[in-house]
Amino acid sequence: MSLLVVGSIAYDTVETPFGKVEDSLGGSALYFSAAASLFGPVNVVGVVGSDFDASKISFLKKRGVDLEGLYMESGKTFRWGGRYYEDMNKRETLFTYLNVFERFQPRIPEHYRHSEYVFLANIDPELQLQVLDQIEKPKLVVLDTMNFWISGKRSELEKVLKRCDIIILNDEEAREITSEANLIKATKRILEYGPKSAIVKKGEHGAMLYHNGHFFFAPAFPLEKVVDPTGAGDSFAGGFMGYIAKTDKTDFATLKKAVIYGSTIASFNVEDFSFNRLKTITMEEIEERVKAFKELTSF
Amino acid sequence: MSLLVVGSIAYDTVETPFGKVEDSLGGSALYFSAAASLFGPVNVVGVVGSDFDASKISFLKKRGVDLEGLYMESGKTFRWGGRYYEDMNKRETLFTYLNVFERFQPRIPEHYRHSEYVFLANIDPELQLQVLDQIEKPKLVVLDTMNFWISGKRSELEKVLKRCDIIILNDEEAREITSEANLIKATKRILEYGPKSAIVKKGEHGAMLYHNGHFFFAPAFPLEKVVDPTGAGDSFAGGFMGYIAKTDKTDFATLKKAVIYGSTIASFNVEDFSFNRLKTITMEEIEERVKAFKELTSF
Repeated sequence: MSLLVVGSIAYDTVETPFGKVEDSLGGSALYFSAAASLFGPVNVVGVVGSDFDASKISFLKKRGVDLEGLYMESGKTFRWGGRYYEDMNKRETLFTYLNVFERFQPRIPEHYRHSEYVFLANIDPELQLQVLDQIEKPKLVVLDTMNFWISGKRSELEKVLKRCDIIILNDEEAREITSEANLIKATKRILEYGPKSAIVKKGEHGAMLYHNGHFFFAPAFPLEKVVDPTGAGDSFAGGFMGYIAKTDKTDFATLKKAVIYGSTIASFNVEDFSFNRLKTITMEEIEERVKAFKELTSF
Repeated sequence: MSLLVVGSIAYDTVETPFGKVEDSLGGSALYFSAAASLFGPVNVVGVVGSDFDASKISFLKKRGVDLEGLYMESGKTFRWGGRYYEDMNKRETLFTYLNVFERFQPRIPEHYRHSEYVFLANIDPELQLQVLDQIEKPKLVVLDTMNFWISGKRSELEKVLKRCDIIILNDEEAREITSEANLIKATKRILEYGPKSAIVKKGEHGAMLYHNGHFFFAPAFPLEKVVDPTGAGDSFAGGFMGYIAKTDKTDFATLKKAVIYGSTIASFNVEDFSFNRLKTITMEEIEERVKAFKELTSF
């Protein structure tokens, strides 16, 4: 298994009805790695500032995460601050300091270039294209993006879409990118831009996969207490791709199971701040919840 | 099987992006009956005005719907007008003329009083209580309600909740009734008011059932074209209760299947205006879609 993620590494300050954390580890690349490394090794590309405390991610190294692509630049690490309210579906961004991330130019280390599975986390589509230019014949490229790029860098985003196999986005973004109010129609129409499959995340309503003319629906795991929703999408992607890379298959049956593993790991991730829960989680706990997922929809 | 519904009978004027109908048949009792009668006989209690054209519902009689409880009063039939936009999740009410429905006092015909399965459609909780006072030992009482009664007739609604077995409501209403933002917590807390089970409808995101400490999730059937969402909730309830009444069981396995049959019939219902689709639907078409539902979540 060779799995690559290129994304952000951040210090997050997050406030939810259950507490507050300051300068806790975050960013798409780290959430993804914490999740995907449960299945096997991960190659990470990202940038941190000289204030970054690498000892805090030593658990990732132990799990087989290759951090050679984690570049340290002079300056400060990317910082994000946000607040969630009782209704966790909405969040307020309090601040975004890009810092060293503003000048991020992804350089893919030589021994990462043969990575078979590639996750382009939500970064500038121009950078996503630069990543793809440095990779040799990946088996599967999965793309994440957001409304900011859909409206702001549409043509660059369309170029990335042509070169990816699966796009992961949320329901609002699916509607925005296709100008289609009906979510089923929107999901189908995304494939006109290039990807073979689409995954639409619907927050508390779960996720759906569209592949080869077929839909698959996964509910969100019923949680009474969501401590911190930050990183739910990236830990979903990490579980999804970790499972695929480990299985080394990309057929519909594998993608469906991967969606369930992604949903499972995301559901654990939101039970604590940062990715604290993913540090201690065991494969047994994961398998148990995957079984519970089956029960949730079987009739 | 003896199944009773008490609810509204209306002439609807509905405009959607796919067209417009004027004075088409509607109302919770008729949508419910059109759906439930696919499984067996239904007893209806409701009121119409002297302008009501009974010939238009002769297909219900042929399907075994007993209309003795359909009272005709002098005056006009209840009329509702609404408009749906591209995003079908939102609707605008253009007018509501209660007409004869304003003085509706449900009288349950003698031979309906032993009905085993009772659906209290969304009407004034005071009237719902009057209905229950006239029924002898029902096996299962299912209640529908709406935000209007949650805020306006809370104490009466709480009395009905104590006397029903299952409540059906939408996600907003579940949050409103319990003042709980987390939908899972809200769904569980509803049972504190009396019902043994709760069904929360989530529109395009499907429905969930909570029963005996277990959740069951059904997606909405993926439809590219929703012609008219009016009556989706009542046709869901009709399919749900029709299946239960026919099966004559109320265990979790039966309730789960009933949710799927309800979702299936609601998904057909929204494919055309009024309940036109339910007039011509066959049991084979229903069974085929139930099978497709299974595929949507199996992994």
